[in-house]
Amino acid sequence: MDPNALSAQLSTETLHGSLTDPAISSMNLLNELIDDYPKAISMAAGRPYEEFFDVRLIHEYLDAYCDHLRRDRGLDDAAVTRTLFQYGTTKGVIADLIARNLAVDEDIEAAPESVVVTVGAQEAMFLVLRALRADERDVLLAPAPTYVGLTGAALLTDMPVRPVRSTANGIDPEDLVLQLKRAEEDGKRVRACYVTPNFANPTGTSMDVPARLRLLEVAAAHDILLLEDNAYGLLGTDRLPSLKSLDRSGTVVYIGSFAKTGMPGARVGYAVADQRVAGGGLLADQLSKLKGMLTVNTSPIAQAVIAGKLLLNDFSLVQANAREIAVYQRNLRLTLAALERGLGGRPGVGWNTPTGGFFVTVTVPFAVDDELLALAARDHGVLFTPMHHFYGGKGGFTQLRLSISLLTPDLIEEGVSRLTDLITAHLP
Amino acid sequence: MDPNALSAQLSTETLHGSLTDPAISSMNLLNELIDDYPKAISMAAGRPYEEFFDVRLIHEYLDAYCDHLRRDRGLDDAAVTRTLFQYGTTKGVIADLIARNLAVDEDIEAAPESVVVTVGAQEAMFLVLRALRADERDVLLAPAPTYVGLTGAALLTDMPVRPVRSTANGIDPEDLVLQLKRAEEDGKRVRACYVTPNFANPTGTSMDVPARLRLLEVAAAHDILLLEDNAYGLLGTDRLPSLKSLDRSGTVVYIGSFAKTGMPGARVGYAVADQRVAGGGLLADQLSKLKGMLTVNTSPIAQAVIAGKLLLNDFSLVQANAREIAVYQRNLRLTLAALERGLGGRPGVGWNTPTGGFFVTVTVPFAVDDELLALAARDHGVLFTPMHHFYGGKGGFTQLRLSISLLTPDLIEEGVSRLTDLITAHLP
Repeated sequence: MDPNALSAQLSTETLHGSLTDPAISSMNLLNELIDDYPKAISMAAGRPYEEFFDVRLIHEYLDAYCDHLRRDRGLDDAAVTRTLFQYGTTKGVIADLIARNLAVDEDIEAAPESVVVTVGAQEAMFLVLRALRADERDVLLAPAPTYVGLTGAALLTDMPVRPVRSTANGIDPEDLVLQLKRAEEDGKRVRACYVTPNFANPTGTSMDVPARLRLLEVAAAHDILLLEDNAYGLLGTDRLPSLKSLDRSGTVVYIGSFAKTGMPGARVGYAVADQRVAGGGLLADQLSKLKGMLTVNTSPIAQAVIAGKLLLNDFSLVQANAREIAVYQRNLRLTLAALERGLGGRPGVGWNTPTGGFFVTVTVPFAVDDELLALAARDHGVLFTPMHHFYGGKGGFTQLRLSISLLTPDLIEEGVSRLTDLITAHLP
Repeated sequence: MDPNALSAQLSTETLHGSLTDPAISSMNLLNELIDDYPKAISMAAGRPYEEFFDVRLIHEYLDAYCDHLRRDRGLDDAAVTRTLFQYGTTKGVIADLIARNLAVDEDIEAAPESVVVTVGAQEAMFLVLRALRADERDVLLAPAPTYVGLTGAALLTDMPVRPVRSTANGIDPEDLVLQLKRAEEDGKRVRACYVTPNFANPTGTSMDVPARLRLLEVAAAHDILLLEDNAYGLLGTDRLPSLKSLDRSGTVVYIGSFAKTGMPGARVGYAVADQRVAGGGLLADQLSKLKGMLTVNTSPIAQAVIAGKLLLNDFSLVQANAREIAVYQRNLRLTLAALERGLGGRPGVGWNTPTGGFFVTVTVPFAVDDELLALAARDHGVLFTPMHHFYGGKGGFTQLRLSISLLTPDLIEEGVSRLTDLITAHLP
């Protein structure tokens, strides 16, 4: 046999089905275009603003966490060193600091033992879905469109995701009732509904408070969990209470991310899962067992970096991100103004007006497919994300997502101008 | 509904089956005993020696990696900062440095594009099994006893693990042939065989070179992959070539760990998967897609710490661990000598004599169950690991694993003395 010869075993057809799912393949296309057209203005990447990053901060954050261990926990130098260098507890070493952050920024009371620190929110989503997906009857509900990471985590656990209608006010609780009924008729067991109430990826949409309360009511009445993903919640004005802070029935599992408010490079997120499990302590304890089989524990060095940022900012990431939040707000304002100047009044062209987060949804009266994206990259030097990527290919055919988080005012001006040219050229 | 009330959905019976698997539950018992008897001498934990850890090293390693990015890659300060702070590529940012380490320490030629940097070897094992487990016919073979982390990763993917006989020379290639035949008769598709040729966890056993060559031959002839886990390979004398370095047929996926040779707290491992996949590039590319859905990417800060250690040690972890390797060798020698002094000549009592790694297997003429472990902790102040934990409850009933990596000479003397008392008291 030749070295690295094609093994009969190794073809995409005999590997796990997630690897050939269209939702995942289409996101790879986007990454390829970003590589192929490096000079295109990217209104596609959902990355945090990086102007205020500084490598020295990593050293400062590490030192701050070590000082905390000595001062507040009474650890000696050997114990401090061991905390950073050795295997840590599976649930993580900074659960108490995360709980303080949630109290300060989100008015959420989380017992530290209900927190599982994860390798980003992505691992937290996987753990929750892995716990809940016991057999082939189990399904998940999620708004359409939805975050592609949720789709990926569900694919890894072979858990079907059934769509719930989403409006300009976010997920529609009444359609959730309908979809619960349909799932039951189909012999399915709905384990949870995923939801991003604040400045959702990909739409930028937020839910108002009555919709949040109604969603909680529906979830409690039907005994399903709500998986609340709040990656963007802090990054806007008019902040509304999280589902978790409003929850009186214990239905909400809160998925936290430090990628947008801490730093992506730490890859630290978490789940708050304070639900009691018959025969098994808290749901957090069950997630921790799964994590032990998946990644053992989240790097305590990475956790220390995030902890240091919390410690040096009075546990408030709103405070820590004051400058970044101002940038995102400015960028949203500039983007919406540029859209208005370029495309205002054009029949069939519209966009929503989020008050926070990274994303704006633009609607046009023609197909926004991957071909249009390739043409935009090649001929117009601008990148965006066709919205159909977030519908698993079952919707969003005339919409696109604009990401504003990484850009400067000049790039926004030029990017929207190029987008305007592209759209205008395709109008009837 | 009361807050956190028991939901009908949330009982261990309606969660994923891995959560109630005996293999996992029994490992939790061990952790509880360690907590309950903090003064017991632990010959149970498989952790690296920590005397030479120093928090300042983390800062030095980070600086060394940043210097490397500036000097060898020509990155400016903004690009260096971006590398550490932002999302990184899914395959990781230090694949080239890992490839250099493999060339220096293991005589393995790995193309950087075949390397996927993972959250410890644990995530690498999960990714490989997730890729290979396409439907219910797919099974994995592994030696009995086997590393509990492999069992965990297989449970998460619902992939059955079928045992292969293991001897004092490691996994038995002739029994592998037999098990392949049996699996085929049972309508199963064997995707891979897991193997730890060097100083295996839990036995401490290594395979000789003829057995390695025969194993490669069997795998190539039957078109199965070998998953080579080499977490302990550097930590001994009489080092033998890895399967990957001997592989001429492209059957070996190499699973690397920096937990024992870099630092556990970084949680960095990797897979080398240079097999070509029909319709999908390298197997590494497929693993990378799965990783994107699981953890997005491994923290570049954690990767930078490991990279710095490689850069400051001429890419050799043998060199970097010279003092640790001397400690492990001394501890093995002292442990074997103390066993000989305490238990030599006792009928039915024996142990193997590994030349590296962290573990020694002791055999006794009575049952080594969890009750005996509890009694050892309570009445004798010594902890070990009953070997049955590593057989999934299907063997190893009269064996125990001793771990020597964390101990001082005094603790070894006292630990083995306590163990001698326990064993002597149970001899017929």
